[in-house]
Amino acid sequence: MRLSWSPVELVSRLARRGITYNFASGAPDVTVLPIDEVRRSFENVYEKYGTLILAYPGAGGLKELRIELAKYLSRVLGIRASWRDIIVTAGAQHAIKLLSQLMIRRGTVIYTENPTFVETVAPMRFQGARLIGVPMDDEGMITQELESLVRKHGPGIIYTIPNCHNPTGVSLSRDRRKHLLEIAEKYNLKIIEDDPYTSLYLNTQPSLKSVNDDVIYVGTLSKVLGPGFRIGFVVVGGALRNNLEKLEQHDFASSTLTQYLVYDLLRRGVAERVIDEARGLYSRKLGELVDSLNHYLPGSLMFNPSCGFYAFISTKINAWHLLRKCTKAGIAFVPGDKFYVSDGRLDTARLSIGSIRIDLIRDGIRTLSNVIRTMSTNIT
Amino acid sequence: MRLSWSPVELVSRLARRGITYNFASGAPDVTVLPIDEVRRSFENVYEKYGTLILAYPGAGGLKELRIELAKYLSRVLGIRASWRDIIVTAGAQHAIKLLSQLMIRRGTVIYTENPTFVETVAPMRFQGARLIGVPMDDEGMITQELESLVRKHGPGIIYTIPNCHNPTGVSLSRDRRKHLLEIAEKYNLKIIEDDPYTSLYLNTQPSLKSVNDDVIYVGTLSKVLGPGFRIGFVVVGGALRNNLEKLEQHDFASSTLTQYLVYDLLRRGVAERVIDEARGLYSRKLGELVDSLNHYLPGSLMFNPSCGFYAFISTKINAWHLLRKCTKAGIAFVPGDKFYVSDGRLDTARLSIGSIRIDLIRDGIRTLSNVIRTMSTNIT
Repeated sequence: MRLSWSPVELVSRLARRGITYNFASGAPDVTVLPIDEVRRSFENVYEKYGTLILAYPGAGGLKELRIELAKYLSRVLGIRASWRDIIVTAGAQHAIKLLSQLMIRRGTVIYTENPTFVETVAPMRFQGARLIGVPMDDEGMITQELESLVRKHGPGIIYTIPNCHNPTGVSLSRDRRKHLLEIAEKYNLKIIEDDPYTSLYLNTQPSLKSVNDDVIYVGTLSKVLGPGFRIGFVVVGGALRNNLEKLEQHDFASSTLTQYLVYDLLRRGVAERVIDEARGLYSRKLGELVDSLNHYLPGSLMFNPSCGFYAFISTKINAWHLLRKCTKAGIAFVPGDKFYVSDGRLDTARLSIGSIRIDLIRDGIRTLSNVIRTMSTNIT
Repeated sequence: MRLSWSPVELVSRLARRGITYNFASGAPDVTVLPIDEVRRSFENVYEKYGTLILAYPGAGGLKELRIELAKYLSRVLGIRASWRDIIVTAGAQHAIKLLSQLMIRRGTVIYTENPTFVETVAPMRFQGARLIGVPMDDEGMITQELESLVRKHGPGIIYTIPNCHNPTGVSLSRDRRKHLLEIAEKYNLKIIEDDPYTSLYLNTQPSLKSVNDDVIYVGTLSKVLGPGFRIGFVVVGGALRNNLEKLEQHDFASSTLTQYLVYDLLRRGVAERVIDEARGLYSRKLGELVDSLNHYLPGSLMFNPSCGFYAFISTKINAWHLLRKCTKAGIAFVPGDKFYVSDGRLDTARLSIGSIRIDLIRDGIRTLSNVIRTMSTNIT
C-alpha cells in the first residue's frame, strides 16, 4: 500500500511559522506540563538508580512503572488490573501499531466510528484492514448501525474511542455502551478501547475496560505528563499479553530513561496533581471553543463535544483551500476529510483546544469566521 | 507465525539473580557510560528548551539531533550524509523493524551471515522473509558462497554486520567487501549494513556505506551513550527515506526528551570522549576473553574475533543444558543455536564482554571450563 503523511503532520509542517491560533495540534497545554517536576524526577532517578536508567529496557516494560500504572489506573480511571497485564509501549500510537500487527491480517474487518482518528487507523490500514465506518451522533457511535454492519460484514474487531472522541468530542452514552458490549459478546468481536483523554475530564462515563475485562485498553500519559516521554500502555491479559511482550522485542522502542522518569512522576503523585489543574483548564477551553463557534460560526458544529480536545465542524467550503488562506491569517487546523474511513467530507475540519492559549480561542474563531465569510463571498 | 522469546531475553530472565560472570548481555560497560554528562545535558536542555523537550517528536527526528549525527558520522565513521538522509529511530532494533516492514514481503529472500544476530532477524521473519544463511570464516561472510546462493535463490536483500560481527566477532576482509559490493551491483541486491560496534574500535575497515552510498546504513548510540535512550538511526536517501519517515508515524516511538539529550551529548563532544576511553577498555576486554579461552578452553573459539563485544565458541555439549549448570555457578551466556538462520548447532555459545567487569573475565572462563569438564566427564 502507499504510505502517506498524516494530515496532522502535514498541517504542522505548513504551520511551522507565524501561527498565532493553533487549532491543529493535539498536544497538551504546555502551561500544565510539569516540567519542573520532571527535572526533580530526573534528579531522583539519577541519584537512586544511576546507570540503570541508561540500560536496555526489559520486555513488557519496567516493573516499577507497571506497578505505578496499575495504581494510577485504579485510582484515576477505575480500572483494576494486575501490573503483569499492563504492557508499557512507546506511546499509545506504538501500542495501536503493535496490536495491529498482532490482530490484523489482509481483509480483517475493523468497525470504528466514522470519522475517527486518522493516525491510529493508518497502521491498521498498513496491515491490510478493511475499515468499516459506523455513523455517529451526539451520543457517539450509533450502535444500531454497528449491529446492522456486523450482520452484513461479519466478524472483526471494534476499534473505538468511546470517551472524548477524536475528532468529534462526543462520548458514547450509557445505553449504547451497554449495547456495544452486548454486540461484542453476541458476535464474538474483540474491542480495542483507545482512551487518551478521559482522565482530564470530570463526570465522564467509566471506560469500557472498567466494566468488561475482555476489552483491550490502550492508554497513555502523553496528554497528562507530556508526549515527549513516549509512554503509553496496553491493558490486556492472556495470550495477547504474551504475544505483545514478544512482539515488542522486535523494536524494543520504549526508553528506559523515560520509563524511570514517568515511574517517579507517578510515584510522587505528579500525574494526579496535573490532572487536578488540567481538568479545570481543558473544560474552560472546550467551553470557550464551543461558545465561540456558536457565536461566530453558528450551525458549524457537527457534533456537540462533551470532553477531550476536539470539535468537528462543517466549514461549508473545501477545508484544504480554507487552510491555505487561514495559515496566512495565522490560523491552523486539520482538515477533516482524512479522518473519515469512508464518505470523507472535504468541507469539514477538526479544531483542537489542546495547545492554544485559552485567551486566544475566541479571537481565533472570529478570525476563522472572517476568512470563511470572505472565501464564501468570493465563491458565490 | 509464532512469536518466541529472544534467547538473549530468556537468558537475562534466567540470570536475574546471583550471576557473577555475565557473558550474556550485549549492553555496554557501565563504567564508561557518561551518566554525569547525561545529568548535565538534562540541565542544558531543560534550561534552553523548557517544555519543548516534552513535546511530540516530529517525523524523521529532531533536526538538531540529525545535524549532530551527520557531523558525528563524518568525524567518527567517515560517512558523509546530509542530515535529511539521517532518520532517527527508537534504537537500531526499531530501525531494522521499520526497514523490514518496508522492504520485506512473504517470501522475500534475505542473505545474511550464518550465524547472525537473532534479534534483528526476528522482525524480518515476522514479515515472512526467507532467510538464506551464508557461511562465514575469520574474514567474515564467504562472498563466493554468497554468489552461488544468489544464483540459486535469486534476487533479495543482503543483511550484514560487516564489522565486529554479532555473534562471531569477525570483520569482513577488504577483498570480500569489494566482492560483496560487486555482487550487490551485479545482481541488483540492496544491502542493509548493521553497524553498532565500529566506532568503539580502532583500525576497523571503513563501513560499506562510506564507500558505497547505495548501502542502507543502520547505526545506534546505544553502545556508546547507553541503550536506555533508544536512539538509533538509518542513513538512506530517496524513496526509501521518504517511506521510512512516513512509516515512523505509525508508531511515533522516538522520545523527544531523549533525542534532545543525545543531541546535547553529541554537541558537547561527549560521545567522542566516551569512545576514546571505551576503545582501550573494550580492546583489553576482548583480548582478555580470547586469551582466557585459549588457555582454559583451547580450540573452543569457532572464529577469531577482531572487534565488537562477542566471541562464538563450541561448547562440545548442549549449550542449554550447560547454561542451566552454569547459572548455578554464577555464569550466564547465550546459547548459540538460535543465532543460526539454518543448521543451528546446539553445542555453541555467544560470550559477550560488553557488561562484565574486565577483572572477572579470566575467572569466569576458568569456571566455565570447569563446568564443561565436569559435565563432559559425567556424559562419557
